[in-house]
Amino acid sequence: MPLSKNTEKYVRSLSQKKFRQLHNRFIGEGDKLVKEILSNESIKIEILFALEEWYAENEQLVKSRQSKVEIVSSKELRKISQLKTPNQVLVVAEQLDVQLNPKDVQSSWSLYLDRIQDPGNMGTLLRIADWFDIRTVFYAPSSAETYNPKVIQASMGAFLRVQHIEMEFEDLQQQFPDLPTYATVMNGTSVHDAKNNQKGIITLGNEGKGIASEIIAKTDHKITIPSYGKSKMESLNVAVAAGIICAVLKKK
Amino acid sequence: MPLSKNTEKYVRSLSQKKFRQLHNRFIGEGDKLVKEILSNESIKIEILFALEEWYAENEQLVKSRQSKVEIVSSKELRKISQLKTPNQVLVVAEQLDVQLNPKDVQSSWSLYLDRIQDPGNMGTLLRIADWFDIRTVFYAPSSAETYNPKVIQASMGAFLRVQHIEMEFEDLQQQFPDLPTYATVMNGTSVHDAKNNQKGIITLGNEGKGIASEIIAKTDHKITIPSYGKSKMESLNVAVAAGIICAVLKKK
Repeated sequence: MPLSKNTEKYVRSLSQKKFRQLHNRFIGEGDKLVKEILSNESIKIEILFALEEWYAENEQLVKSRQSKVEIVSSKELRKISQLKTPNQVLVVAEQLDVQLNPKDVQSSWSLYLDRIQDPGNMGTLLRIADWFDIRTVFYAPSSAETYNPKVIQASMGAFLRVQHIEMEFEDLQQQFPDLPTYATVMNGTSVHDAKNNQKGIITLGNEGKGIASEIIAKTDHKITIPSYGKSKMESLNVAVAAGIICAVLKKK
Repeated sequence: MPLSKNTEKYVRSLSQKKFRQLHNRFIGEGDKLVKEILSNESIKIEILFALEEWYAENEQLVKSRQSKVEIVSSKELRKISQLKTPNQVLVVAEQLDVQLNPKDVQSSWSLYLDRIQDPGNMGTLLRIADWFDIRTVFYAPSSAETYNPKVIQASMGAFLRVQHIEMEFEDLQQQFPDLPTYATVMNGTSVHDAKNNQKGIITLGNEGKGIASEIIAKTDHKITIPSYGKSKMESLNVAVAAGIICAVLKKK
């Protein structure tokens, strides 16, 4: 049965943040990500669109889930895909429930992302969190939305495994008043020498503007990644900085 | 005088690698980068296109250099710009002479980039090199070209300060047979425990495929960035990995 105009319109609408939020949905595309979604029983899948060949190979997996299935042609897939090169399969699924685990936050590392704008950076930051077993990533309300297709793609599946929770920094501090806070700044203590009890909130800031001064003022530890030689760079890319800080702090 | 059709055609042709290589030129855009280019006397500038306001503010700096100048309208700038939002000024300049400094390479860290495909990653890698005072970045012939406008933008000016040299890994090893080589792999020694005399070649690999097996086979030290918990990620983004390795190895 050919793809209905209404279905096409609905899926295409989910390329926009406002419709993703209205319907509480996101789009996952491509063999690898869709298989991961199908294998994750906590994700509610609304509908799966697949090329016939892909479906034939993955019928068992698909049938293990209660999901509507539509077999589509390459041409139809192209109409609803958000990728330049559509890749065999696409699902529409429910956004994950946010489940803040206060005990987890209280006893380990979390990230706070202050207005990260670039979806590629946002996705890479989730990927870093997952690598370093950081279970919770908080982000300021004006950050890139974590269900943006480019975030999803850059996160390589980590957006499914790491909790991402929108919250003002102030509210986060009110909820966890004893948790040490770290901010990456220009002239702080070297990250290699930072006081570290293997728990706390690591804040990273906007690509151009850095961390808001109100947040820095409320932060316990101001840390810096040392540069060498006569480097004229003002900063590292925010995801690179996050990776270095996590690698160094987790090591101790 | 309005921009001639020929000039327009010439500048636009430089958005393509083959013409950049044919003419040995690159394009720098935007207030910040152009000021850096103007302040760097080792760069030969062929022609500068500026909006009248920008020129009025920066006349002194421009006149300090022997460069043809064309005052253009916003509309004309848009025609030759490679940015989505053209930014006041654009220069066409000569690609930098490659000056391999064997003494430098022999006594410090260099990077070897094996077929990095994404220009954003390539630029970020140059930015990391600059931050950590790594003066030379070698790259495999089939990597993203370092004068690609997206590389230039992501490098934040680092492409002017770090030597980037195309070379086969084999030739590099022949030239520096005693220099220790490091490759980032899945199951190597933790980077935190890697043997380290503050010199060597750190190889990073293609985004999807990693480092070519022939290169790994010829490498002295196989190193890994430890992951934590039950991370399902197969790898970190290549620039994030490079940042962590540089931060840890430079520290010792």
